[in-house]
Amino acid sequence: MKCRKCKKPAVLKMPRHNTAFCDVCFQDYLLKQVQKAISDGKMFLKEAPILVAVSGGKDSLALWDILIKLGYETVGLHLNLGIGAYSATSQQMVEKFAQTRNLRLITHGYQESYGLGVVEIAKASARPACSACGTMKRHHFNRIAIEEGFPVVATGHNLDDEAARLLGNLLKWQVPYLEKQSPVLSDDNGKWAKKVKPLYRLPEREMAAYAILNRIDYIVEECPMSNGAKAFTYKETLNRLEEASPGAKHQFYLGFLKQKEKSFPSPPPVTDADACLTCGQPCQSEQCGYCRLIERSTSLIVS
Amino acid sequence: MKCRKCKKPAVLKMPRHNTAFCDVCFQDYLLKQVQKAISDGKMFLKEAPILVAVSGGKDSLALWDILIKLGYETVGLHLNLGIGAYSATSQQMVEKFAQTRNLRLITHGYQESYGLGVVEIAKASARPACSACGTMKRHHFNRIAIEEGFPVVATGHNLDDEAARLLGNLLKWQVPYLEKQSPVLSDDNGKWAKKVKPLYRLPEREMAAYAILNRIDYIVEECPMSNGAKAFTYKETLNRLEEASPGAKHQFYLGFLKQKEKSFPSPPPVTDADACLTCGQPCQSEQCGYCRLIERSTSLIVS
Repeated sequence: MKCRKCKKPAVLKMPRHNTAFCDVCFQDYLLKQVQKAISDGKMFLKEAPILVAVSGGKDSLALWDILIKLGYETVGLHLNLGIGAYSATSQQMVEKFAQTRNLRLITHGYQESYGLGVVEIAKASARPACSACGTMKRHHFNRIAIEEGFPVVATGHNLDDEAARLLGNLLKWQVPYLEKQSPVLSDDNGKWAKKVKPLYRLPEREMAAYAILNRIDYIVEECPMSNGAKAFTYKETLNRLEEASPGAKHQFYLGFLKQKEKSFPSPPPVTDADACLTCGQPCQSEQCGYCRLIERSTSLIVS
Repeated sequence: MKCRKCKKPAVLKMPRHNTAFCDVCFQDYLLKQVQKAISDGKMFLKEAPILVAVSGGKDSLALWDILIKLGYETVGLHLNLGIGAYSATSQQMVEKFAQTRNLRLITHGYQESYGLGVVEIAKASARPACSACGTMKRHHFNRIAIEEGFPVVATGHNLDDEAARLLGNLLKWQVPYLEKQSPVLSDDNGKWAKKVKPLYRLPEREMAAYAILNRIDYIVEECPMSNGAKAFTYKETLNRLEEASPGAKHQFYLGFLKQKEKSFPSPPPVTDADACLTCGQPCQSEQCGYCRLIERSTSLIVS
């Protein structure tokens, strides 16, 4: 099979585009897709540095690599979740990536801060691990971006992640989540960092190909806590639908984005009244989910 | 395993309710679900006769049986699609059901009317068979209901049918179809028959159990034209999700119905201007899909 663009031997078949690309043309296509996502979503410009949240997995490390190639100024941010060997290896992958490319990396470790990992913190609140982990990540992304002066935090969520989340939200008609689901989350008039997902147009399969072609060393194992997570069921479901109709994921998620403001309008920016009384971050009640989590896990240590 | 209600031996496990029922309590539950659908949706009352569209499959024959048990006055309507032995057997099943219960049945045959079956009519317009078949059914349900003086046509669509249709509409964000998807379709201020789906709360599995327990003789084969239809992929997908989370289909479809008017408001009733110039049925252009189909298939016979 030959590359559609340059007719050299192809390295990747792309059924959703009914085509195939060689290494060079595939990477060119992929970078253009990321730039399109950034431009269409008015995510960020080249003037200000971007904080890139890097877990050590293929998507976030590839995102960091791509943003540099596209000419953006970036700093990495790694949260060490304190999940034994998995977190240790993840951090090593991120540090190696940063060191070999001479990039600035900010790290924050849960064990050092709380004396506990995310699993123990979740248990103390009887919260599912993935849900507590999400709450904590959002808090620290926001906090570190503000403290370090970054207006934007970019994460490595790809098309599969976003489509799976959408499917889950629709199956349960979780309307507040549908209203908030977007590749660009507002900075609430400059009060907080904007959250952006520049990989939302690219499926996992293409991101894996990019990481391999660029010899990016990443942690292949999934998080040991995510075993049996609903997200896997939804991804598997969408993979089957994609196989039956190539392009199904793209049509599903991009179609949602087109219809979103009409059917699920975004919530208004938060005001000063919508702030956690403990940490000051956006929150609909007196205390935010993060502060409740930490309060309970701290009481666990004390008792 | 014992029946949750009466403690007699159970005949059917119902994971979505985390329970099991004996024959009598299951049928009692099922009839209540249908009555709830009729009452919640203000589908019809006992004063006027209901036209029940019966294909010969388990759902529509079970629906007819249930409506009689619930005390509604009913007349059956069978369309013979002219698909060889499949259509012949389907009609036999319906006729046998009506004869043994001494019920009035109206039949309309495509071969007799057009000299063609639905497959040939679809081919003449290069339309997918299922789509042409749907267009034709809608036309004849409406026409016969009006001609024979029935204000309501009831069809045997179950929860699986409706959830699969919803999934398909959402995957492609077919907003006009989402706006029209409902277990109760307006009679347009009395201009046309109201279309209702009293089985929308009941999954296929429970309808099959009802048909078997009541020894209803139905055509087991699926329509030979539906092979590979997208609806099967969506049903299979939803069955897998149901297995992972019992109750998923119910939550998905009933959740949609709750959110529908906010996110996908129903179109306004049709006016006199929205009528096909040939047959007078509701239509957004000069000629409706049904009349276009028939015109093309007739020209095929002539040429």
